[in-house]
Amino acid sequence: MRGSVSLVGAGPGDPELLTLKALRILQHADAVLHDDLVPPEILGHVPADARIVNVGKRCGTKKIRQEEINFLMISLAASGLRVVRLKSGDPMIFGRAGEEIEALRQAGVPYEIVPGITSALGAAASSQIPLTHRNASSAVVFITAHRAGDAERVEWENFVGSAATLVIYMPGTNYAEIGRQLQKAGLTAEVPCALIARATRSDEQTQLTTIEKLADVRKLPAPSLLVVGQVVRFAAKENASYSTGELESLIAAAVPADFHEILS
Amino acid sequence: MRGSVSLVGAGPGDPELLTLKALRILQHADAVLHDDLVPPEILGHVPADARIVNVGKRCGTKKIRQEEINFLMISLAASGLRVVRLKSGDPMIFGRAGEEIEALRQAGVPYEIVPGITSALGAAASSQIPLTHRNASSAVVFITAHRAGDAERVEWENFVGSAATLVIYMPGTNYAEIGRQLQKAGLTAEVPCALIARATRSDEQTQLTTIEKLADVRKLPAPSLLVVGQVVRFAAKENASYSTGELESLIAAAVPADFHEILS
Repeated sequence: MRGSVSLVGAGPGDPELLTLKALRILQHADAVLHDDLVPPEILGHVPADARIVNVGKRCGTKKIRQEEINFLMISLAASGLRVVRLKSGDPMIFGRAGEEIEALRQAGVPYEIVPGITSALGAAASSQIPLTHRNASSAVVFITAHRAGDAERVEWENFVGSAATLVIYMPGTNYAEIGRQLQKAGLTAEVPCALIARATRSDEQTQLTTIEKLADVRKLPAPSLLVVGQVVRFAAKENASYSTGELESLIAAAVPADFHEILS
Repeated sequence: MRGSVSLVGAGPGDPELLTLKALRILQHADAVLHDDLVPPEILGHVPADARIVNVGKRCGTKKIRQEEINFLMISLAASGLRVVRLKSGDPMIFGRAGEEIEALRQAGVPYEIVPGITSALGAAASSQIPLTHRNASSAVVFITAHRAGDAERVEWENFVGSAATLVIYMPGTNYAEIGRQLQKAGLTAEVPCALIARATRSDEQTQLTTIEKLADVRKLPAPSLLVVGQVVRFAAKENASYSTGELESLIAAAVPADFHEILS
């Protein structure tokens, strides 16, 4: 029997945001190598006799660990097992799937990639922020505040010249510094933003603020996302806490003028 | 009984890329208003006695039709039904969910938003293009080549200054013009790109090329996506057709130098 590897996205956190395809693959897995952030309910779909390995907790010694993950994936598949490499979110967005795919190709191991809902989409849905909007933003940028393996700064100015929504993955907790960098890159102090922690999980938290007041926001737990742009005006207010009272006045009615006419 | 609306993402095309949550909601729907691109297999989950309305085919008279969709959603919910507004991909990415949410808020109808796998993630998985990569791209931009309701040109130059991957939704079929615009905005002729049509469907097609040779690519059927950036070098070659022979030489090995040592 020939082994294989499925690189599978587990979605943003809510166990119900797994796809039917991911569920089917997990139910037939012989071994699962998963990230830290994959919820236990999702691992509950794996057969009782399958081998489950947490390959998360990769901070610090990132590079060596990635090679170890590649080694584990390949050797388990080489021994004939159906291996699932289960990643939080989507494998192709900040998931380092590119490196794992190259290793699998080099080793000649058959593999497939199963997309998942990346955390930006989960956060957008639960905080009700449309990432694009006909009247506010015609593009969305997914970017990380951390650059792998170096101290190189993020080139925010490449993205702030348009009305694009910015979704910053892994913003850390130095919100003041990100706010300062965004202003330096050209965004104005009043641009609304949302910090969303543990999106789609039962302990999700959202803070709505502006770039200028990012420094005043209390630190939220990881994993978190920072959404920056005019679309944040559309965020749901009922579940969010505020660091500023100004936002209520920003809500714009996007309903057509003759809407009530049509409805009556 | 009080009605409600669920804005649900149906995913990129493969019926198995529906989430467990979307499945549960569809199985309890009283009425479904769906886009054109939602596959029939997904509509098969809806109870036999539910009302199913195709509200797609919105080209041309876009504005009036959006109001009609809002009107339908709200009046069905107001009559006590559990309404599903089923969108291809994800509701919050080029899905006009923002406008529908505002209408639901104005009308006081309870609603929820269920994310789906946006087509960029489906296309990335099936063509094996990591949208971000430690060595090639630290950001990804989702943008559309069509601007709603006006002839305004897309400001490509806001996004080409970095090494960000560009994913262009709804690129149309005038590939030569897009290639010309991207070059004018500052991208070099050699930047690799992939046209992916009907991603994750059984009739998916992928064409790998470069910006300069976009004009030579045969027209692919809708829906399609154009991925632009160095990450396209990592695309799977076995299922793709080529408009240029140059790409084979672009494949870079991203495996650590000591990989074979670790494995042995």
